[in-house]
Formats: sequence, structure tokens, C-alpha cells
Amino acid sequence: MLTALRANIIAAPALGKLEITEYGYLVLQDGVTLGVFPTLPEIYKTAQIEDFGDALLLQSFADMHLHAPQFPMVGMGMDIPLLDWLNTYTFPLEAAFKDIEYARAVYTQLAATLINNGTTRVCMYGTIHTDATLLLMRILDDAGITGYVGKVNMDRNAPDYLCESTGESLRETLRWLGECERFRNIRPMLTPRFVPSCTGELMGGIGRLAAARGLYIQSHLSENRSEMAWVKELHPDCGQYWETYEKYGLWKDHTIMAHCVHSDARERAAMREHGVYMCHCADSNINLASGIAPVRAMLDEGLRVVLGSDIAGGSQLPMLSVCAQSIRASKMRRILTGWTEEILTPAEVYYLATSAGAQYFGGGTGFPVGEPLHALVLDDKGFSKTVRTGANPPTLAQRLERAMYLADSRHIAAVFSAGRRVK
Amino acid sequence: MLTALRANIIAAPALGKLEITEYGYLVLQDGVTLGVFPTLPEIYKTAQIEDFGDALLLQSFADMHLHAPQFPMVGMGMDIPLLDWLNTYTFPLEAAFKDIEYARAVYTQLAATLINNGTTRVCMYGTIHTDATLLLMRILDDAGITGYVGKVNMDRNAPDYLCESTGESLRETLRWLGECERFRNIRPMLTPRFVPSCTGELMGGIGRLAAARGLYIQSHLSENRSEMAWVKELHPDCGQYWETYEKYGLWKDHTIMAHCVHSDARERAAMREHGVYMCHCADSNINLASGIAPVRAMLDEGLRVVLGSDIAGGSQLPMLSVCAQSIRASKMRRILTGWTEEILTPAEVYYLATSAGAQYFGGGTGFPVGEPLHALVLDDKGFSKTVRTGANPPTLAQRLERAMYLADSRHIAAVFSAGRRVK
Repeated sequence: MLTALRANIIAAPALGKLEITEYGYLVLQDGVTLGVFPTLPEIYKTAQIEDFGDALLLQSFADMHLHAPQFPMVGMGMDIPLLDWLNTYTFPLEAAFKDIEYARAVYTQLAATLINNGTTRVCMYGTIHTDATLLLMRILDDAGITGYVGKVNMDRNAPDYLCESTGESLRETLRWLGECERFRNIRPMLTPRFVPSCTGELMGGIGRLAAARGLYIQSHLSENRSEMAWVKELHPDCGQYWETYEKYGLWKDHTIMAHCVHSDARERAAMREHGVYMCHCADSNINLASGIAPVRAMLDEGLRVVLGSDIAGGSQLPMLSVCAQSIRASKMRRILTGWTEEILTPAEVYYLATSAGAQYFGGGTGFPVGEPLHALVLDDKGFSKTVRTGANPPTLAQRLERAMYLADSRHIAAVFSAGRRVK
Repeated sequence: MLTALRANIIAAPALGKLEITEYGYLVLQDGVTLGVFPTLPEIYKTAQIEDFGDALLLQSFADMHLHAPQFPMVGMGMDIPLLDWLNTYTFPLEAAFKDIEYARAVYTQLAATLINNGTTRVCMYGTIHTDATLLLMRILDDAGITGYVGKVNMDRNAPDYLCESTGESLRETLRWLGECERFRNIRPMLTPRFVPSCTGELMGGIGRLAAARGLYIQSHLSENRSEMAWVKELHPDCGQYWETYEKYGLWKDHTIMAHCVHSDARERAAMREHGVYMCHCADSNINLASGIAPVRAMLDEGLRVVLGSDIAGGSQLPMLSVCAQSIRASKMRRILTGWTEEILTPAEVYYLATSAGAQYFGGGTGFPVGEPLHALVLDDKGFSKTVRTGANPPTLAQRLERAMYLADSRHIAAVFSAGRRVK
């Protein structure tokens, strides 16, 4: 079926670049993009047009690091640093996901909230619980979310109620992988929680599994100074945090490392050389007072940077808010570095929150021809109408910027994921 | 008429203290608070009860620094520092308020948005335009907002289209003051924009007017290093920024100084000694990369600290968001100071955003007996229901904390201002 969406179309073809088509057409064949056009080409004259008027048609978002079970504790208890926060709040909550009905209630609400806010791609952590993680994948898939989900592995330095034995962790991972074929757009990725939670034996087992089955890996890196010191104690043979992952075959192409707040030039070079993605979680890093990652340096050095909400260290699930918070964090770094470091621009964070994530999944940037559509329609008239009657009518780029600061799910009028309308 | 509101009542009687009455009663006689009670006292048995169930009954908010005419540019163009930002975005927009119909459109939307978000007290800037400022006061008053509004004075270093002569500025201020008696709950306060915008002659005239009529003053202080250097150039006889205000009789009890990002111990001591209020505008200071004010030191030193949204340097009008952002900013300072400075707690920012502002207007803290009610009802079931079915049911204090991060106007079910229901 030939259709066309009409609106002000804003694509992010490259870092810092916006491709703006004022009141143009995005033409689709069965949900697959045929192109973006300022006027409807003659050959598509028969397309059924959905006209969104003066609204913005944006790429939908990729949230590349978040903990599904922490959704109920968003905005709570962020008065203590990472390691205390995990023990006090996070671990007791994650243990509750042994109860599949509790998992169903939380994950259903999470999936709906993601879609409502225009997030259609994720790399997400579940818990250690295989069945709850499979349920999470089912719920996401049914809601129209795409991407990767991981059953968490942790076999040390966790409370008894949330700790697997090494053998159990590996066996359950195999059982889980065996059940993952059934989903349309959700795939598994291996998820050793972080170095302190995983023995070398477990990390080695996961590394071999990743190699044997061509699976991707997600974990955490250099988030907090105390965490880093602990990793150094646990692996005195490793010069830097990242080397502990490398030792066990986890440091490789498409591995996603969240945070990297304190990654120095050497660690960053290792990321670039191995095709490791850095997931920037600005709000989480602020909330837990971890610090601010050197994102500008990473971008200048050619690292692959993506963005994550990191709920519940982060307290904002909507990626538009994550965009604004990433800009604010870059201003913090500007302050921290005596105004020597350039801030992130709205165009840059829009790219990082959309195209950069899409590329992780093998997609192109912008609205790539031949790919199923990932998009959202943003109706900003509620907060931009007064501007129009006075001085300084906002440009489309400024309306995108304002949306990052002012829009919420009320303003997201439609969402398309993998070629299908899901809101 | 005797009424009682039933809900979970959370008051802020003192900095960092919460007074929580679980599912209690706030009893009112004609909108004036008679008391907060865990059970309804026998003498009030005839009260008509409005039951808000499991919702939170909070003190409503005081936004102690915001620029009404900048409402249309919230979330826009914050990529340049203060002085450039004023010239590029702010001044051209403020000039549009010569048009009374434009002013009406913007100010009506602003007043509605404030009430919708539970802000019932303000100290607010208009523009240089007397008639538009009077209209702003009328619209706020009709919407049920209380507090002070200022016609802005500026007679130098502004574009021609937004610059008064000294005589005109003073004459218009007198004309404006002559028209301010007509409002119920909105009063005038004198508003020299900031030192670079006002000649000594104008500042002196405003100072004499303040003394003669017992009027309060609001302005800006030590927000940005370039601004401070400029002030030093303009007033080489003054050792510090604040002394320029003192020179002209503007540095006195109840003067509100916004920002104070770079106020050192000497400037802070001068604030304390003279009863000057410091208005902390965390989001604005981040957005414009001005820095983070030393709020903890100020509180420890006994300064009077209040909070402001400072739109449009700040991009968040809802004071719940301002609370969360103030916490985040304190975490930034924690990072900046190598974890030596204590962060602001949710209880502290709740106090600063409510009781501290109420005190400025002569009110008491918490829900003071004998005062017309300022309150809001927060219905958080949309984001707290999943918590209840699993581990860690949140306390009422935690629900208040979560509201700062997660609530928006959708969750504010009712607002009371000066004893009257306004939402």
C-alpha cells in the first residue's frame, strides 16, 4: 500500500546536520520509506496522504541504555552514590521480578510509556530472571518496540536474593537464548551487569557464547571513581577498566558500554579501535553525581556515541528530555573546563538520539530509503503558538530545539516503528 | 463556610523538614486555614469535606524570579552566553510587548500555565512598557496568582527600540505605580533590569522612590563573569557588584537578587546583613553556562534563599521541575567541588520553593493557621501505582521526591491560591 505522510520533516543525516523539508511528503510503500520530497512526485500521485499539517515529523528515538526493572523507582533515592544506591534501592527492587505478575504490570507500563514518548528502538537490561526477561521481550515486541534485550548475569557481590551461581547463570542464559527466536523485532544481547558483579569464569563463558553465536554485549564502564577503584582491586592485572572486558572476549565490535564518564584518552582509543559504542547517560551521571562524560572529545576522536535514558539512575525516560539533559550536561562540562569545551547542539543530540542508534542496528541515518519507517509526529502548537504572533517566529530547527525542553507525551501525536503505526 | 480537604498532607515547616499527615484533614473557614489534623476534630464535624483520596496535598509554589515576556522563547537559543543572548533573542522579543494584543495573548497563556502547574506566588518582570505591565498584573490577578510584578527600567546599553530616557523611565514608573491600586493580590515592585542597563541617575531615582513609598526591589547579581567585569568597568569606585546597588539605595531588606552564581563570602555577607534575598535559578545558570551558585554555603551562612524558574534563561516553568533541577545543580557543585559540598535534598528544595517564598510575602511556613490557603493537590497514581504492587512501596516523602522528577500539569488535580480554588 502506497501512503504519504505530510508534515514538516526533520532528518538527522549526519552529526550536527539537519535536513529540513518544509511541509513535505514522506512516501511509504507498505511502511518502507521510498523517499522524502518537497512536493509529491507524479509517480506517487495515487498515495493515500495523511496530513499532519504544521506538525513536525521527526525520526523516532533509540534509547541505548536502560534498566527495565528500575522503571518503578524512577525519580527516587538518588541521594547516594552508585554502589550504595545499587544495594539500597536497586537490588531489592530487581529481586521482585521473580514474580512474573509484578513483571507483567511494570513492563506493560514501561512499553506503553516508551511508545507514548516516541522511543522505538532500545538496548535494554532485564533482570537475572529468565522468564521475566522473556516476558519483557514479548511485551516490547507486542507494543511495537524494536531492538535488543538482555537477561542480566551476576554471580558475585550481589545480595543472595539476586545472585546466581556461575553455572546457573550460564545455563539460564542458554535456556533464555533458546526461547528468543519467537519475537519479531526484539533480539537478545548478552548482559554481564558490570565487572564487580561477574566472576572471571562467568565473563569468560559469556565471551565464548558471544563469539560462538555472534551476539552483541552490553555493560557498564568507568561510571564512578569508587567503582573503578573496586574493579582495579578485583583485576590487579588489568591496567584499565576496559581491559577486564577485553580479557574475557567482551571488548569487541558493537559492544555497548554505558557511561564512560572517566574514560581517559587511552580507554577511549581502545573503544574506537574495537568498535565499542559509548552510551552517554547524562541525567544518570548527574543524578548519581558520577561526573560528566567527555562527549565532545569522544566525538572529535571518532567514537561511536549513542544516548541512553539509563532509568532509574536517569530520571527521564522521554528521549526528548534526554536530549535536553545531554545539552545541559555539555554546558556543565563547559563550566567544569573553564569554557574550553564546545557544548552539544540540538542538531547534534537529535542525531545521537536517533540516527546514531539506528546505525547500531544496521540502519542508515535520517529516513533511509528502503528501510521500514521509524518516526514520530510532534504537534507543538500548544507551546509555539504565542511565538508566531509576535517577534521572532521560530524556525523549524528552533521548534525542534524547543520540543526538547517543552514537549512531553501529550505532544507526540503519532509514532511509527518498523514501518507500522504504533501510536 | 467551613470546609476540609482530605489527602496526604505534606508541609515544609523548616528547611529540610517535612511535616507529614497521612490521609489527614486541612480545615478551612472561608479559605483561611484553621489547622491540619490527622482526624477531624469534633468542633469541625460540620465541615464540608472534599476527599482527594490517596493524592498528596502540597503547599503551592512561589516562583521568585521570572520574565513574563520571555515566555514565548522558553527552550530556545540557549547556545550563547548571557550578554549575547540578551541582544540576540531577548531584547527583540521584549520589544514586541509594545503591542498590547500580543502582550494579552502571551500573558494569558503564561498565567494559565502557572496555575496549571501549581505556582500561586510570583516575583515577576514585565517589560519597559507600562500598559503591557499593567495588563500583565490584571491577567495574573484574574487568574488567581498573587505577588509582585515590576515594570522594567532600562535607560542605557539596550537597543534603541527597548531603551527609555532616564526621565521617561522615572515618569512612566510613577504613572505605572499610580495605576497599581486596582489589583486584589498583585502589587508593584521596582525593577531596574540590571546595572549595565541603568544609569546611576536612574538607579538613584528608583532608590529614592523605593524609600519614599516603601517598595521592594528586584534585580540581577553576579550571574556571569563577563557581566561582572562590565559592571566593574561601569562602576570602578565599587569593589563588588552589590556595592553598585548599595550606592543608590537599592541594597536593602527584601531586595531580591537573582542568580548570585559568583557571589563570594564578602558579597554573601552583605546580602545577609541587609536582608537581601538570593533567588537561585539553577536551570538558567546551567542553560547559559553561567555556573552553579554556592547555595549550600548560603544556607549554612543563614542567607534567605528562594527559587526561580527564570524563564527564559531557565527552560522549565513548572516549579516541581525547578525543584528537581535545583537538586541536579547541587550535584553538579558536588562534582565541581570534589564531593566536599552536600547536595540539596528533596525536603530542602520543597521548602525553598514554597515556604521560603511565602515568607518573603510575610506569610508563615507550612500551612499557617490564620492565612488564606496556598496549596495544590498532586495525583501521582499515574506514575506510582507499579511501585505499590512490588517491593519498596514509596513513602509519602518519596512520592514527593518522585513528583519533582515525574509530575507535570496533568498530575496537578487542584490548586488553591489565597484561599480560593483556581484549578
